[in-house]
Amino acid sequence: MAVTEADKIFKEFREHSAAEFFKKNRQMLGYSGAGRSLVTIVHEYVTNSLDACEEAGILPDIKVVVRKVENQHSNNRYAVIVSDNGPGIPKGYVGKALATIFAGTKFHRHIQQRGQQGIGAAGCLLFSQITTGKPIFVKSSTGRGHAYSCFISLNTANNKPIIENMVDIDEEFIGLSVEGEFSEIRYESGDHGVLEYLRRTALSNPHAKISLVDPSGQELVFMRAVEKMPERPKVAKPHPLGLSANDLLEFSHLSNSRKISSFLTDTFARTTPNKVGELKDADPSIDLDKDPKKMGWDDAEKIINAFRKVKWVAPDASSIVPIGEDQIKVALSNILNPDHMSVTQRTPKVFRGGVPFIVEAAVTYGGNSGKKDDDGYSGNILRFANRVPLLFDSGVCAITQAVKGIDWRRYSIDIESQPVSILVNVSSVYIPYSGVGKEAISQEAEIVEEIKLAVMEAARGVQRYVRGQDQMNFNFNRYKAISRYIKQLSKDLGDLTGEDSSSIETKLNKVISKHFPKPKEQASQVNPYLDGAVSDASDKTPVDG
Amino acid sequence: MAVTEADKIFKEFREHSAAEFFKKNRQMLGYSGAGRSLVTIVHEYVTNSLDACEEAGILPDIKVVVRKVENQHSNNRYAVIVSDNGPGIPKGYVGKALATIFAGTKFHRHIQQRGQQGIGAAGCLLFSQITTGKPIFVKSSTGRGHAYSCFISLNTANNKPIIENMVDIDEEFIGLSVEGEFSEIRYESGDHGVLEYLRRTALSNPHAKISLVDPSGQELVFMRAVEKMPERPKVAKPHPLGLSANDLLEFSHLSNSRKISSFLTDTFARTTPNKVGELKDADPSIDLDKDPKKMGWDDAEKIINAFRKVKWVAPDASSIVPIGEDQIKVALSNILNPDHMSVTQRTPKVFRGGVPFIVEAAVTYGGNSGKKDDDGYSGNILRFANRVPLLFDSGVCAITQAVKGIDWRRYSIDIESQPVSILVNVSSVYIPYSGVGKEAISQEAEIVEEIKLAVMEAARGVQRYVRGQDQMNFNFNRYKAISRYIKQLSKDLGDLTGEDSSSIETKLNKVISKHFPKPKEQASQVNPYLDGAVSDASDKTPVDG
Repeated sequence: MAVTEADKIFKEFREHSAAEFFKKNRQMLGYSGAGRSLVTIVHEYVTNSLDACEEAGILPDIKVVVRKVENQHSNNRYAVIVSDNGPGIPKGYVGKALATIFAGTKFHRHIQQRGQQGIGAAGCLLFSQITTGKPIFVKSSTGRGHAYSCFISLNTANNKPIIENMVDIDEEFIGLSVEGEFSEIRYESGDHGVLEYLRRTALSNPHAKISLVDPSGQELVFMRAVEKMPERPKVAKPHPLGLSANDLLEFSHLSNSRKISSFLTDTFARTTPNKVGELKDADPSIDLDKDPKKMGWDDAEKIINAFRKVKWVAPDASSIVPIGEDQIKVALSNILNPDHMSVTQRTPKVFRGGVPFIVEAAVTYGGNSGKKDDDGYSGNILRFANRVPLLFDSGVCAITQAVKGIDWRRYSIDIESQPVSILVNVSSVYIPYSGVGKEAISQEAEIVEEIKLAVMEAARGVQRYVRGQDQMNFNFNRYKAISRYIKQLSKDLGDLTGEDSSSIETKLNKVISKHFPKPKEQASQVNPYLDGAVSDASDKTPVDG
Repeated sequence: MAVTEADKIFKEFREHSAAEFFKKNRQMLGYSGAGRSLVTIVHEYVTNSLDACEEAGILPDIKVVVRKVENQHSNNRYAVIVSDNGPGIPKGYVGKALATIFAGTKFHRHIQQRGQQGIGAAGCLLFSQITTGKPIFVKSSTGRGHAYSCFISLNTANNKPIIENMVDIDEEFIGLSVEGEFSEIRYESGDHGVLEYLRRTALSNPHAKISLVDPSGQELVFMRAVEKMPERPKVAKPHPLGLSANDLLEFSHLSNSRKISSFLTDTFARTTPNKVGELKDADPSIDLDKDPKKMGWDDAEKIINAFRKVKWVAPDASSIVPIGEDQIKVALSNILNPDHMSVTQRTPKVFRGGVPFIVEAAVTYGGNSGKKDDDGYSGNILRFANRVPLLFDSGVCAITQAVKGIDWRRYSIDIESQPVSILVNVSSVYIPYSGVGKEAISQEAEIVEEIKLAVMEAARGVQRYVRGQDQMNFNFNRYKAISRYIKQLSKDLGDLTGEDSSSIETKLNKVISKHFPKPKEQASQVNPYLDGAVSDASDKTPVDG
């Protein structure tokens, strides 16, 4: 047989590992630009630590150290150490947990966590390896007396960990400490830097103590603001409305139930035997006695179709734990100390047919809200997904799209020129991130709409205050305008009548202050709407220099 | 040993396949929203077809059919067929080529192509499988008499293809035809639809004939505008300035050269024996006689460091083939028929130290440029990477960032209110896409800067025209203003002097037209700057209804 063009081309055919792919495309993991790359490293390790602590029921105490490393070849070399007081990683898993892409404890579980992909930590290690050729140094203990340390690198050809120098250590160490050396990163201040990332992490995780030692050696501590663990989200059974026929098939083939009927009630939320009866009524051709392992695509499609015909109780909110209204107030008060704020938590909604999610939103006005530069104030948006701050890729994020889609004039707010901050946190067992780097929430219509409603609700709360403030400013300006004439008028009246002009002035002032009460202070300094929960916490200092 | 918290948590540890990951996170591949999902399918198959045709030296003839499929369970079910006249896929590779994630002929080769990831086709198949449970039907022939057909699906658990019903067929078929059935997609018109995607593909690939049969059965054909294959990009040896120490190490360990010196000259561009001598001068501690297989990180870092100390000839542009100035003009003229356009091709530049790339930019004014709605005109940006149109995720794209960062007033252009289109095509052996879905170019500083310079250069060309037009409008308005008085003045002068007022009017008109020549036509209808290449092509109709 002659050699064809296709034969020539396909001589080049190869398969690659996930590690090779992300080594070549590291910007997809968030490693683009020196400043962002450092934040990505901190973000990956800190979210893992927070997840681990919470899963073990431990109030998180997380330390981040960023230290400049002198190197003749590079000006952008730093060591990054992230350590926690969490449950640690058992020796037998440490390699795969930190150095295998698409491996972890979270991907397949229906439980709300920050991580959900099994990529982050391995991506960091890959980045260290690419830029400095060095392994990651890990210390861990899963309980007193079980501490060990080792060096871990990643064989990119087969996406497998390489563990070296595994030794038991005698330290009284509890938790996990990961230390890596990286090039092509840079410590930056400002809105897209590590400090801001940790500040926002503290804001959305007031139960965590987080400290940072920055490259100048200065230590900054975000103190724990609440001493209570957030409620643990329950493992969620999938809701029938969130399933595709393909999902249903895969679940059925893994099932040990004898019949489709019991498979359905065992596997899915809100699926009572009565409900299964309703499905049968909706489509009598469904064979509920069939072995679920033998379910075919047509069976699955029929059942999915019947799912959509019957009425369901909404997904159980216990699988989703938002930050909570009170905690948001405490945290915003600590960090922004606004003149006014309004916080909203919406009821659970679903996207893609049935994945439940909860949106929280807050709008703050005054204090340290918004951004201030030479041109004055502008609003800013604080984006969170499952309590994790999102600092990058705002241009493709559902939160940004929702906030920009609101007609702010309706709320007497100008986000272009006023000191306004808008916080949004989306909580779900499954957040549909737009990219592997998890810096933005995909613009799914249902999510965008729900964020809009939440922010509009919060905006209405602030509107009353902004209007009140406008009214106060208006009255104050009228008072000032009228006052300008009093002195001259009193003098003229005194001249005309022969009476004492200063006593006329006092009397006139009395008349005017009756009609136009003089504001005690400038409107921006009063805070009539701030409620108790906020004031109680406002004396705590979030950052200790 | 007691069971620790960590043991409990890590009982849940699993590894996953790339296919499982993208099945769960399909929005990362571009499958978010019904309209975008359909464009993604068409995009993946069409780019593969264009690449295959070009690699085999065949002028592409690509047919796309989108047909609505009646289905009791879904209103959004379509069949999509993409067929080409390319080299086909050998039987032995068809499964892996179309149904394995991270596999293909392109990922590891240093050659400019549209595809570079080995994800696209497998992602389409996965999406069909998730939404309809159906395999993809494939017909292919790698030469006359070798046609076959088969059905392919993907085992997501291990990311391996499943091939069924492989049969030889008797058809006189050449090339590749892929047919899939999909749900959760929708045929949409407008800026983010399939027709616009193909229109832009035709614009950047004037050597291709592309046809679309839309769901209404209407056939639209974008005719081939040039009968010449674009130059084939040469396989590029990596340029030394584009390497990291890690890259160098990996190359060295694969090398069969006996010494580092010959390894360097054999493997990298612009690396002559003289240059190697200069490296040794820059760092005498480099051991050039060492076996490259034994190169260590320190050796690699020394060499990389020396690379940065010596002067290099810029990367060879023959590895990059842009669209070309003339072809852009022909295409823009066909599709936008602008009053004026200015096209720029910049010289090759490098990013990340040494990955070469070329930016082309065009700015067009008038005709069908820009967008028109009830509020009037606004500018629009046509983004391309390696001739592939980018329709989504503009908010994180280097091209959008560059265009928005330009002070357009300097060019007398208002992109908010004028009929302006801005085309940018970035060509490179490696495009750093921001996400796996390849809809935006990562905002790497060097790339953004170079795009800015290219667009500004093109804008200057249009500025002369816009100013000329402004001047014409200005003169015309003065002429009109003065003319208003002529009639009355002639009459008054006639009354005063007794002369014939109409002869006075004629004389006055003569005087005025000498000082303010009346434009022959409205400025927007003349086209003084349009050059030959464009006019020649302007009678061709790009779309046959």
